[in-house]
Amino acid sequence: MNDLNGKDDKKISTAVIQRLPRYYRYLGDLLDRDITRISSKELSERMGITASQMRQDLNNFGSFGQQGYGYSVEVLYGEIKRILGLDKKYHLIIIGAGNFGQTLANYRNFAERGFIFRAMFDTNPAIIGSFVNGIKVYGVVSLKDYLAANHVDVAALTLPADAAACVVQTLSEGGVKGIWNFSNSDVKVPSGITVENVRLMDSLMTLSYRINQDEIIQRLEPS
Amino acid sequence: MNDLNGKDDKKISTAVIQRLPRYYRYLGDLLDRDITRISSKELSERMGITASQMRQDLNNFGSFGQQGYGYSVEVLYGEIKRILGLDKKYHLIIIGAGNFGQTLANYRNFAERGFIFRAMFDTNPAIIGSFVNGIKVYGVVSLKDYLAANHVDVAALTLPADAAACVVQTLSEGGVKGIWNFSNSDVKVPSGITVENVRLMDSLMTLSYRINQDEIIQRLEPS
Repeated sequence: MNDLNGKDDKKISTAVIQRLPRYYRYLGDLLDRDITRISSKELSERMGITASQMRQDLNNFGSFGQQGYGYSVEVLYGEIKRILGLDKKYHLIIIGAGNFGQTLANYRNFAERGFIFRAMFDTNPAIIGSFVNGIKVYGVVSLKDYLAANHVDVAALTLPADAAACVVQTLSEGGVKGIWNFSNSDVKVPSGITVENVRLMDSLMTLSYRINQDEIIQRLEPS
Repeated sequence: MNDLNGKDDKKISTAVIQRLPRYYRYLGDLLDRDITRISSKELSERMGITASQMRQDLNNFGSFGQQGYGYSVEVLYGEIKRILGLDKKYHLIIIGAGNFGQTLANYRNFAERGFIFRAMFDTNPAIIGSFVNGIKVYGVVSLKDYLAANHVDVAALTLPADAAACVVQTLSEGGVKGIWNFSNSDVKVPSGITVENVRLMDSLMTLSYRINQDEIIQRLEPS
């Protein structure tokens, strides 16, 4: 399968990548319930996709499952964990210590999955030097020095769009490999750094579509 | 195209629905730059999908564009706005007035798009009765009465998963049509109410995949 966003045929399509965390979650739920194996039919039905689609997705990464047996939940869970890079630990920083930055700092389950917040940065003198859930807030002016002294894998951008654009170069030069972008615009990044945009507005639009879709279907099919 | 998640053939696939807000955003950017028409090739390249995929997506909703002319940006923008239900206003409430609820309450661009936050609810006596960005915080105990007296389209759930499950029935009985779920688990809802789950952890996993994918590709192809 070709990646339409990139130049490299080895890359996996965005749609497949976005389903991987869902496979991982569903398999984790099964493990928690002591279910040791599952057919591709059952697993795909839980996920709301076709069994054929699921086999195609997983074939991107190797050969899983066995005819007539299905998948070993533990093996498949472990493989997807490895594919997602969840067998490693990541150091994260948060740029923007406002409400949303504080929300991220206070989540517990990120650390459980290996994503460890190490520092926060802000421009507001009133909060620089304070701590959020044990994480120190530094001034944005000291970002460059911090990155020179500390290994950081991912920076979460929880600040306005225009301010976000300004820190990207510093992050890239400081060795940050991933940007988790919550600012309300796309950020342009140099090669070697990858961006995941989280757009709350998009999900709200999807919801408003679904609300109205139901109305339309009800109008078309009076009960 | 069949919806694999639903029972109704008239429904549009989730992948298409999730691309609609992106079409809307890209077309809005073009309008802002006074660009009046665009070819399907150009628009699809901006979106990182094939022109054929884009035509398929839009064909779900009717016939747009014209051979040799392309799309009128204004017409297509208006149509997608209507399809997404963005020609209407929505009343929203936020259940959970912690950091994340406050983040939502403080965003300006939701109201600009027709999504108006009317009230917040929390169980913490210290904040009940206070205001966040002009929005009053009520006790969760008064949710039922509030819904009986006020029309609410969408409830954002920004509270722990176990607490989220408890309010869903009240929301549904109170006429809420959509749930924008930020709690860290799926919520089960009665028919007639639709849920959009926003999973921050999934996007972080996608990012960790991409960081590692680049490493793997670099190892396979030494420069």
